[in-house]
Amino acid sequence: MSLRVLVLGGSGFIGSYLVEALVDLGAQVRVLSRHAGIHTPPLPGVNYHFADFTDLASVSESLFDVDIVFHLISSTVPATANLNPVADINGNLLPTVKLLQMMCDMGVPRLIFLSSGGTVYGNVKSVPISETQGRNPLSSYGIVKAAIEDYILMFSSQHGLKSLVLRVSNPYGPRQNRIGIQGVIPTFFKQIMSGEEIRIWGDGSSIRDYLYISDLIAVILRFASTDVSGVFNVGSGQGTSLSEVLSTIENVTGTAANVKFLPSRGFDVDKVVLDITKLRETLHWSPIVSLREGCCRYWDHAKSI
Amino acid sequence: MSLRVLVLGGSGFIGSYLVEALVDLGAQVRVLSRHAGIHTPPLPGVNYHFADFTDLASVSESLFDVDIVFHLISSTVPATANLNPVADINGNLLPTVKLLQMMCDMGVPRLIFLSSGGTVYGNVKSVPISETQGRNPLSSYGIVKAAIEDYILMFSSQHGLKSLVLRVSNPYGPRQNRIGIQGVIPTFFKQIMSGEEIRIWGDGSSIRDYLYISDLIAVILRFASTDVSGVFNVGSGQGTSLSEVLSTIENVTGTAANVKFLPSRGFDVDKVVLDITKLRETLHWSPIVSLREGCCRYWDHAKSI
Repeated sequence: MSLRVLVLGGSGFIGSYLVEALVDLGAQVRVLSRHAGIHTPPLPGVNYHFADFTDLASVSESLFDVDIVFHLISSTVPATANLNPVADINGNLLPTVKLLQMMCDMGVPRLIFLSSGGTVYGNVKSVPISETQGRNPLSSYGIVKAAIEDYILMFSSQHGLKSLVLRVSNPYGPRQNRIGIQGVIPTFFKQIMSGEEIRIWGDGSSIRDYLYISDLIAVILRFASTDVSGVFNVGSGQGTSLSEVLSTIENVTGTAANVKFLPSRGFDVDKVVLDITKLRETLHWSPIVSLREGCCRYWDHAKSI
Repeated sequence: MSLRVLVLGGSGFIGSYLVEALVDLGAQVRVLSRHAGIHTPPLPGVNYHFADFTDLASVSESLFDVDIVFHLISSTVPATANLNPVADINGNLLPTVKLLQMMCDMGVPRLIFLSSGGTVYGNVKSVPISETQGRNPLSSYGIVKAAIEDYILMFSSQHGLKSLVLRVSNPYGPRQNRIGIQGVIPTFFKQIMSGEEIRIWGDGSSIRDYLYISDLIAVILRFASTDVSGVFNVGSGQGTSLSEVLSTIENVTGTAANVKFLPSRGFDVDKVVLDITKLRETLHWSPIVSLREGCCRYWDHAKSI
């Protein structure tokens, strides 16, 4: 791969894996992120720009001579975005619209955006959810992601930008944020390991579609090697309840959890399982790592640090 | 009606009729608008605040002691919003989110928002379009309206705001903007009257759902007198092609049009006809004024000024 790529958010959980994989494939990789990775040291050969996504001059500079932009930046997470929707719009939606304008002005041809399969749909009548399902996001996080999707498709249709929107379910794996605001699997592992009380909003029946990080990276790289455009769900296609996740982790760690159930939060969606038929058929690909296998890998990693 | 109401955008086309009707019903009416109406002189008894929607202090002041807010402000129109999506977000989405926060903080209980039935859905497979149809807006105007709808529903669900989202089709009538950027009917009338060339983007087969202004005002007032909440299509439920609109106007005015067809614009939706079953059943109401009757009324008014 002799591509020149820019990874927006390349020091984050998903970004750090993507950058490693792109470097391995021989791509010329540039990263724009707020700060150096907390997960991994800066990689040799990668061109890092440490700046905020709202810093237009830095974004513009980082776009110079790039073939593909991978947009993985989110300055908020579902649990915090609702507290300040204005900051969510200012920090994510507006800079993305400006990015799209700059890409068109500078002739950067292609964008791959990681949207949120877990929040853009909202509560649906039945699962699995296909890409044609209407989007009724319940949280600022999901509202902003949906608006970004729309602007990407608008710029593609009006200015010829080649774009791909990947509605990613709940990715998990080593290096994921463990401070407890995003990623239930790392949070449960951390709490079980420390003997802390595990607080679950709702009764544990809430269903999500968990995707191991290596499967997600494989999908992104496959898409990058094609010229496919459009909107795709990216998940395991399997639904797992919070209680099942917890019992898998108890089983993998051999430790019983100390659980406390709390009242459900209004912005949580009950059930998300993505229909990945379009993904399977387009890439001739299926997820490889089961939830149990992913939890075993996570546990092996967690024990080693 | 002893209600204390605030009409945001009360000097515009729809706003000026709504304010008159509310005054007639005995409501205490406050208006926030950028400037005095170009359509009507300020009405006695109405409390006018002339300020921009982005002026938070003025918006906050105008919310004091209000029972219902009618939100009719749009600082853009479909044809201009795409030229500057950042201004669209800054001028419409952000101030609306701040409005929602202020309403919740100040205990203003109810909001009626006029959304856009003509742009939030995007291109659909079949018409008429029901409220449950997914929204895939193609223009910045529609994207921002859809995001505003989502934030209104989020604030309603999380903070108890009572809200109503009215997805209005193409309203028309006297006083409508005739500078040619919004409102095809006034534009056609003006061009026919002046003998100007009428330019139509596309082949004239583009279908819209035209609603006469008095029918729209009747719907808004009926909703205001109930405590109904949720999302409603508000249209005639009838589709009319541009060519049919033009021949109706030729017929009403007795004048042949000088038409030039231009290439279609990318952000125009082919066909919009709203399914108004939910509106009919909830309000026990049906549109009264046919397109021909509305055009006759428009023509009578246009001849008199």
